[in-house]
Amino acid sequence: MIKKLSTEAYKGTRDFYPEDMAVQRYIFDTWSKTAESFGFARYDASILEPAELYRSKTSEEIVNEQTYTFTDRGEREVTLRPEMTPTVARMVAARKRDLSFPVRWYAIPNLFRYERPQRGRLREHWQLNCDMFGVDDIAAEIEMIALAYHTLTAFGATPDTFKIRINDRALMEAWYGHVFHLDSDSIRAVTRIVDRKNKVSAAEFKMMLGAIVPDTDRLIAGLDSTTPEALSEETVLSKIIDALKDLGITNVVFDASLARGFDYYTGTIFEIFDTSPENNRSMLGGGRYNNLTGLFGGDAVSGIGFGMGDVVMKDFLLTHKLLPKDIHVTAPTLMIIPTDSTFNLEGEKIAQTFRASGIRTAVDISDKKLAKKISAASDGGAGYILVLGENEVGSKSYTLKNLSTKAEHSGTISELIKNLS
Amino acid sequence: MIKKLSTEAYKGTRDFYPEDMAVQRYIFDTWSKTAESFGFARYDASILEPAELYRSKTSEEIVNEQTYTFTDRGEREVTLRPEMTPTVARMVAARKRDLSFPVRWYAIPNLFRYERPQRGRLREHWQLNCDMFGVDDIAAEIEMIALAYHTLTAFGATPDTFKIRINDRALMEAWYGHVFHLDSDSIRAVTRIVDRKNKVSAAEFKMMLGAIVPDTDRLIAGLDSTTPEALSEETVLSKIIDALKDLGITNVVFDASLARGFDYYTGTIFEIFDTSPENNRSMLGGGRYNNLTGLFGGDAVSGIGFGMGDVVMKDFLLTHKLLPKDIHVTAPTLMIIPTDSTFNLEGEKIAQTFRASGIRTAVDISDKKLAKKISAASDGGAGYILVLGENEVGSKSYTLKNLSTKAEHSGTISELIKNLS
Repeated sequence: MIKKLSTEAYKGTRDFYPEDMAVQRYIFDTWSKTAESFGFARYDASILEPAELYRSKTSEEIVNEQTYTFTDRGEREVTLRPEMTPTVARMVAARKRDLSFPVRWYAIPNLFRYERPQRGRLREHWQLNCDMFGVDDIAAEIEMIALAYHTLTAFGATPDTFKIRINDRALMEAWYGHVFHLDSDSIRAVTRIVDRKNKVSAAEFKMMLGAIVPDTDRLIAGLDSTTPEALSEETVLSKIIDALKDLGITNVVFDASLARGFDYYTGTIFEIFDTSPENNRSMLGGGRYNNLTGLFGGDAVSGIGFGMGDVVMKDFLLTHKLLPKDIHVTAPTLMIIPTDSTFNLEGEKIAQTFRASGIRTAVDISDKKLAKKISAASDGGAGYILVLGENEVGSKSYTLKNLSTKAEHSGTISELIKNLS
Repeated sequence: MIKKLSTEAYKGTRDFYPEDMAVQRYIFDTWSKTAESFGFARYDASILEPAELYRSKTSEEIVNEQTYTFTDRGEREVTLRPEMTPTVARMVAARKRDLSFPVRWYAIPNLFRYERPQRGRLREHWQLNCDMFGVDDIAAEIEMIALAYHTLTAFGATPDTFKIRINDRALMEAWYGHVFHLDSDSIRAVTRIVDRKNKVSAAEFKMMLGAIVPDTDRLIAGLDSTTPEALSEETVLSKIIDALKDLGITNVVFDASLARGFDYYTGTIFEIFDTSPENNRSMLGGGRYNNLTGLFGGDAVSGIGFGMGDVVMKDFLLTHKLLPKDIHVTAPTLMIIPTDSTFNLEGEKIAQTFRASGIRTAVDISDKKLAKKISAASDGGAGYILVLGENEVGSKSYTLKNLSTKAEHSGTISELIKNLS
């Protein structure tokens, strides 16, 4: 006796039934349209990458504890990509002599993290990734943050529903170094602790920092201040914030406690937070990484980019009631309903003629009763039905019924096609 | 010193640079449109599945030698899906009480096989998967084969460039049983050997069969005959072939040697072959599997479906010169070109206004010289350029240049937008 198989998806992953897929496609299409409106071109790559790609610059926590890594039969260590930035840096590095910069690329990859599934965090999720390469000017920062902003407004989000937090990795590292006299290893350790600030209690946070920085109170005060000693009027950050205001983007705040988990950031970093109390989370994160392509040899091409997850995006849209009610599975425009199976083949023939005129057409070839077939067509979202029985086949005159207006039209197939087109 | 990382993709996988992605999107969009024209709705699922899903009904060769399977940290055996049918059967089984049959679903999943990469066979490829559930009538066979046929003609393929081969698993099994007196294990073994007929030499084929069937010559003659003893006039297959003729689909042949590798097929099986000598391969394969959903408990819902790979599809399009020459990366309609970086921010502001009117707009914020920026815009496929310098910013009068006609229009931003729309 064979054991019954489970119908459940693998833990932390999702099945996308047609109605879920319709929502997913709406989100992906809106992302895609927004990125392309800024002149970004779509790329893609495999989910399989050599494990070494993530060892040096992705965060240690992610690589050691949160990736799916296995050894293939050729003794290669393979990782299911946990993020897209190392892949895009690899691809740019491979063709840096042939590419015309600035390169503006986007992708919508699925990413894998081996962690306990929880609200907004699954083992597999999709992400909009936008990256620009080859621009050192702060116009790149301004454009990327503007694109991130419009990625939300494209769904109808108003600026009060989200906040853009911005900081500068270089500025923070200089502050840690000059004011607290930390060496580079300690700076990296502090950055990682600061990145976990909102995930641990205040007491725990202070204790963790205390192990590295003697003057913990001053550091915490600096992180919490909106005009901290780390930010002077002349910094790049002030210029970026001013320029964004100039573009009408005013929900931007400096946040000295913003750290970002990845080791590869070298300058401006930013995140977008949902302002609603029930969904107060980071939805999008990014930053400048000027040395990443250098890992592949030769001179580095500067990069800046961000990623935005589909799970948090959908939660945001639900929280703020921004998900359109009329997202439907693509239904057939016309459902042909044979009165019984004798007419199934005739139904398929007629359907072929409608399809050749660009009309999405299905045939109900099930063994349901006529009335059930009609209600199923209506429930499934078909626009029209055409009942096909002995009379219709004999007379070659058919009747189209509009399911919403109940209006009927009779005629030959070509007359009905003209009517529908 | 850190070892230089390789820029190569993992063995047997592909990077999709924007120009490759444009071709991939063209193929996926054509697939999608064709499936939806038949009333199929799109679904998706994770690439990760419990390994047990493939143990009982996928071919032994695939599961034992060709899957990526690993144990996760919770001691679960996980497989990167090698095919989509078990997943869709799982999803249908999970909701069989709520679904309205016939269910017509399609997906474009990426699939993984651990094998030596060769022409047309990579470790990761994408596939169009179309499946219909809940129809026992041969109208399902006819529709699925018609859909497979139109999936090729939608790319402009003519019927002489491909052939549909069709057989019936039940018919062959009955023939093996009644004529050669084989038990069910031997039938399964013979089916697998027949599936490898075109991959081994005639002598090797005969030797492999000889180990199971004493009357090997008679069996081989039956497999090679176009009117073999296995096919009588009254069979379901003859009806399907006649009905397809009625739909204008005449490139269908009975092929007793068609076996298909998967164990789950129970009836009609079919494949589409490229007829060109240089690409004479199977491009699409499918069949009826009436018991697969039963593995999940309860009554089985009958299913029939097919899969078609992106790699063989692209090879087919290239072989028959069917890939349109005008597949381009989605380029910005307008490239704004600041004469120097002082005007980058003004460029971003103007770009935002154009975008708000639905015009894809990028700004060349690189530090290239003006002439290089102009030629890069042209090479990148932009339709128009707008050069932005002191004069333009001062006068608020700008000039749009059409890169193909060389025509120029000057005016305020709103005048230019009206001109472009």
